[in-house]
Amino acid sequence: MSLPGERFHIWCNTAFTGEALAELQAGTAGHSLHVAASAAASVLASSPVDAHFDRAQIAFGQPDPAAILGGAGELRWVHLTTAGYTRYDRPEFRAGVAERGIPLTTSSNVFDEPCAQHLTAMIYALARQLPQSLRDQWGGRPWNYGPRRAASRLLGGETAVLYGFGAIAKRLIELLAPLRMQLIGVRRSPRGDEGIEMVREAEADAVLARADHVINILPESPETTRYFGAERFALMQPGARFYNIGRGPTVDQAALQQALASGHLDAAYLDVTDPEPLPPEHPLWALPNCFICPHTGGGHREEPLRLVRHFLANLRAFEQGGELANRVM
Amino acid sequence: MSLPGERFHIWCNTAFTGEALAELQAGTAGHSLHVAASAAASVLASSPVDAHFDRAQIAFGQPDPAAILGGAGELRWVHLTTAGYTRYDRPEFRAGVAERGIPLTTSSNVFDEPCAQHLTAMIYALARQLPQSLRDQWGGRPWNYGPRRAASRLLGGETAVLYGFGAIAKRLIELLAPLRMQLIGVRRSPRGDEGIEMVREAEADAVLARADHVINILPESPETTRYFGAERFALMQPGARFYNIGRGPTVDQAALQQALASGHLDAAYLDVTDPEPLPPEHPLWALPNCFICPHTGGGHREEPLRLVRHFLANLRAFEQGGELANRVM
Repeated sequence: MSLPGERFHIWCNTAFTGEALAELQAGTAGHSLHVAASAAASVLASSPVDAHFDRAQIAFGQPDPAAILGGAGELRWVHLTTAGYTRYDRPEFRAGVAERGIPLTTSSNVFDEPCAQHLTAMIYALARQLPQSLRDQWGGRPWNYGPRRAASRLLGGETAVLYGFGAIAKRLIELLAPLRMQLIGVRRSPRGDEGIEMVREAEADAVLARADHVINILPESPETTRYFGAERFALMQPGARFYNIGRGPTVDQAALQQALASGHLDAAYLDVTDPEPLPPEHPLWALPNCFICPHTGGGHREEPLRLVRHFLANLRAFEQGGELANRVM
Repeated sequence: MSLPGERFHIWCNTAFTGEALAELQAGTAGHSLHVAASAAASVLASSPVDAHFDRAQIAFGQPDPAAILGGAGELRWVHLTTAGYTRYDRPEFRAGVAERGIPLTTSSNVFDEPCAQHLTAMIYALARQLPQSLRDQWGGRPWNYGPRRAASRLLGGETAVLYGFGAIAKRLIELLAPLRMQLIGVRRSPRGDEGIEMVREAEADAVLARADHVINILPESPETTRYFGAERFALMQPGARFYNIGRGPTVDQAALQQALASGHLDAAYLDVTDPEPLPPEHPLWALPNCFICPHTGGGHREEPLRLVRHFLANLRAFEQGGELANRVM
């Protein structure tokens, strides 16, 4: 991928600051780094491609897909600051980067751990009725000792079905292991080394009736769009809990709303919605058994620093012609 | 403690119903069981001692301490439905039951698991900013993507100090193990088999400055009253989080309020308060970084059934002269 000691133009449109920027500058010292200025001083804001983009061999951040394909031909590697890459995941884009020999890598390693912890937090929170007690605190402050205790559940022995068997699911299994739950993973082609009971997608509907917890970590794709709709919610056992940390469009939200309002589902905890932000007037906000986070699952205080370190580790691999982590194209 | 095949009068003042009552009746079939009627059909309500108490050899529930000592002399074993036994833990009561040869057992085995899960839930919830996002949901529904992500923390590598090293702490250590936190236990006399770093009480103040999380599982006693006061809160590092699942009186709540209001502590999650219920006008309710559950830590849907099963396991031991579980006197 590169010659020993080769010097690259690195273009970055993520507004890193402070310690993260300093590490990025130090770690790219042998190369030329151009960090695009951004009005918003946040790692979450990205600026559009600029005049410097055309001479970059490496693009780090969130470069416009059209600019990647329409560039001057210098580009040799694109590294995204996100785990998701929906807007790049199209046949013409895949063909374009394949033709040009441009690998595309993501930052999914950075987000697996916080996402798995976030899911674990949501599962424990519902088990212990924390949202319900907080609502009491911020309401009339009743001391609902009896009802909250009676509605709390021991997680040990309960069954959870996991959709989307990647790094987040693997880490979630580790975090839940001490509880001795019954975990069932759903995967297109189970390998047998997953360490938990696995079923194929075609068999997944049959296990929904056993699930106390249905955990959605599905990526967004044409096959997963509205995967969880009225039929699948109806297959779930009454009182099941539904979690979504995958992508909002994998759920038919009107069907979810109905399953929650009828009481068929005990509760839902959503970290992702469709659209995002979810408009204030959306009915999911107001359901008493629907709890929502603003897509914070992957977030963490150390996120900018860990994004930079993940990129720099891949840069070392790129310099040495090694294998790039989190390569998706 | 008993002769083979001996038949006992068992007195119970906990209002068990349904499956739990049926198991209690089945499991005591060889004896005579009197379950005191209660106006409140709840496992949490206990009725006062009645005329049947005087001929009981076994008391199960929450019998009045004075009645235990003042009884007709038949009583040979008291089994409480709680883990705590503060109102029995007095020198004259201890001397009285010792003199009469009445062992006192608790139900702490029933509550270790839900309490450990509850603590784990509170730790994960603050790490992932779940309460803050729920407050947004029930407020103006802003989509606080950036601030909530930046305030979220990865638990791995963070330091937690545990006060009160009993069965709850041991189980908590197991539940947190996959996170690879730095756990430090505080104990009067560390044994060396705890599996984590341990310090003596006298050395505990010195480790407070290292703690990202201070976890209070202290029982109530003259030595623990207001153990956490202004001085100890000041010793904690800025930004530390404080959890209490022990007993409310172990904390000087005015000092806690001050440490939270000043921002010295990042947040507190309290499952117990002083008094309980905490009056609606108490200032802790209104602090934006204080989150409160109404003493639900030990509660769970299966609580009545597990209380009965724990009692019956002890009854089998009592019948056979074996060792009673959770014996405290």
